[in-house]
Amino acid sequence: MSKDKVQIFDTTLRDGEQVPGCKLDAAQKLVIAERLDELGVDIIEAGFPISSPGDFKSVAEISDLVKNASVCGLTRAVKKDIEVAAEALKSAKKPRIHTGIGTSDSHIKYKFNSNRDAIIERAVSAVSYAKTFVEDVEFYAEDAGRTDNEFLAKVCEAVVKAGATVLNIPDTTGYCLPEEYGAKIKYLKENVKGIEKATLSCHCHNDLGLATANSIAGVINGARQIECTINGIGERAGNTSLEEVVMILRQHPSLNLDTNINSKLLYDTSQMVSQKMGMIVQPNKAIVGANAFAHSSGIHQDGVIKNRETYEIIDPADVGVNESSIVLTARSGRAALAYRAKIVGFELTKLQLDQVYQEFLKFADLHKEISDNDIPKIIEAANLKIESVS
Amino acid sequence: MSKDKVQIFDTTLRDGEQVPGCKLDAAQKLVIAERLDELGVDIIEAGFPISSPGDFKSVAEISDLVKNASVCGLTRAVKKDIEVAAEALKSAKKPRIHTGIGTSDSHIKYKFNSNRDAIIERAVSAVSYAKTFVEDVEFYAEDAGRTDNEFLAKVCEAVVKAGATVLNIPDTTGYCLPEEYGAKIKYLKENVKGIEKATLSCHCHNDLGLATANSIAGVINGARQIECTINGIGERAGNTSLEEVVMILRQHPSLNLDTNINSKLLYDTSQMVSQKMGMIVQPNKAIVGANAFAHSSGIHQDGVIKNRETYEIIDPADVGVNESSIVLTARSGRAALAYRAKIVGFELTKLQLDQVYQEFLKFADLHKEISDNDIPKIIEAANLKIESVS
Repeated sequence: MSKDKVQIFDTTLRDGEQVPGCKLDAAQKLVIAERLDELGVDIIEAGFPISSPGDFKSVAEISDLVKNASVCGLTRAVKKDIEVAAEALKSAKKPRIHTGIGTSDSHIKYKFNSNRDAIIERAVSAVSYAKTFVEDVEFYAEDAGRTDNEFLAKVCEAVVKAGATVLNIPDTTGYCLPEEYGAKIKYLKENVKGIEKATLSCHCHNDLGLATANSIAGVINGARQIECTINGIGERAGNTSLEEVVMILRQHPSLNLDTNINSKLLYDTSQMVSQKMGMIVQPNKAIVGANAFAHSSGIHQDGVIKNRETYEIIDPADVGVNESSIVLTARSGRAALAYRAKIVGFELTKLQLDQVYQEFLKFADLHKEISDNDIPKIIEAANLKIESVS
Repeated sequence: MSKDKVQIFDTTLRDGEQVPGCKLDAAQKLVIAERLDELGVDIIEAGFPISSPGDFKSVAEISDLVKNASVCGLTRAVKKDIEVAAEALKSAKKPRIHTGIGTSDSHIKYKFNSNRDAIIERAVSAVSYAKTFVEDVEFYAEDAGRTDNEFLAKVCEAVVKAGATVLNIPDTTGYCLPEEYGAKIKYLKENVKGIEKATLSCHCHNDLGLATANSIAGVINGARQIECTINGIGERAGNTSLEEVVMILRQHPSLNLDTNINSKLLYDTSQMVSQKMGMIVQPNKAIVGANAFAHSSGIHQDGVIKNRETYEIIDPADVGVNESSIVLTARSGRAALAYRAKIVGFELTKLQLDQVYQEFLKFADLHKEISDNDIPKIIEAANLKIESVS
């Protein structure tokens, strides 16, 4: 049975680009857009055209450049925003306008000083107006995570009727638990008349560390688009990490879902975005962190040397990393020491290994990390006569 | 109704300390242990005493120092390991030995070249032997995430009978989905005879970005201990982040679960561990990242200025961060510009704001981030006569 496709909507250049510390110029945005297209993302959200002249220009340039993906521009539910976005997107092969409005009571009251009926009216007008420019119109119900499901369904029904092709259900504040977010998607799937004409989309924030889990709960319950960024960058604690959701679907075939992403480009794309944006990826970042495939404890190293799959669920090559690394520290065991000693040319007998290992531990407690260059010194300090075999 | 307590088992100094790049010396470990005790963690896993003389010494020194928390030492299911751990822990007020063995078919076959019955025998002997030294013995079923539930229940039942007080169910490879991990804990809760005598513990790895969600699924389904680290550091993509699970339980009162953690120390503890270990926290890290409470898009800034809760679910002060920050970038709107201009002493009328805003956008497209010091220059460039009010 062929797997259902989940569309990957990348917002690195919009929700990602807007964060403090990010330093992308127009030329760098084009390089990243080109790479995202090559990576296989289905939609590139290129910017928020009305927000500044620079952003308008970027969206227009990206529209020109991108070959395969849809190019999307963000707007508020405001006529002028929609006109400017349509203008910026006019050379895109597959243009999409992304418009919407806050639907939670908190947003309706404090942000818009409005009421539910007026919000639905504004939502419908925005979608209808966007449809006069492009066929593909995505609607976002901002703060959907804290919007009650019944009202949310009403909003969705109205905008689908007005022609929305995609319904974005953002957990804007990153508050939802996976069960709750999954149930919300399920509710909409079951209660919005006309839902078969639109794609439900997950847009989750990571304020509580749950963006990835919430997006997965969303697609398990019927959503077919995930909005995400490279390295999970984005407003505050960021968005769902593209690399994480892609690899979860790939490593869990029983979900029967997949994406169009060429996973072998993930590591390189992560590095490129991190360097160009000046946004650091922590070593313990899933999939793309420097330590993601590094084994350092003795128990784990021993297992990996015997059989990679005892501790690794992803073949590093599948995400473009050359090999799992066995790093020597004071927590390493004899197996790892013998393994790396062999790589640098020393075959140790069991007895030799015992002696060298004692010397190794003294050295490791002092120096923390041991490079391959240290191994001959350690063997020498152990006072053994071992011939290098290399 | 009083909330059920979830024990926080911190393994920053064991699973966290062993990672490549981490540079902690013995004195730094003591400072961190003291802080963890102050933070309110229930158990400090201080190290793996048999692994090196340095680690033995650290566990012994931490045992001496810690006032409130239990102090725990890791062992394999090996007599010598257990003896050495007991020795290292002998001055701890509340010592705990953490012993165990791999239970998945992959571990039994490739790591131990053994069979299921022999593994149960080794598990029971290890727990029984540890009980001759300390009352509090935690058993880990390594790779429990990939162990079939029926066999896992059998192992658990046997070690509880042998006196294990805590059952650690590690998702060693970080493969489980939250539903699957939650169901595993539920199965054990319902099928292990004598389970009421032991606490089920979640130890999740973050290889697919799901460690936090899996731990939460675990406690929702009956576990009452979470093993975690500050900043989520640990082997490969790391462990569950302490700060994330603590704040999820605190922000979701309907779960009716809480911890003993003093959340006001979270940010400072994160900084301390990051600096001492030399392990960077990425800006978009949930709860403790530099951007976790920074708002930069115009839409969000406008909302936060009107009412903090439109975009923030956690009061930054609750985790020890001074205030949410409104950072000016090209994506900022008029509300944010007026807000920061007022902070530096300029009250702008609506008309003035419109004019200054155009100048601001030109400046922002060029300079990316705008500091408060730039605001007077921008106002001057807009050619307006505005008196500073400060």
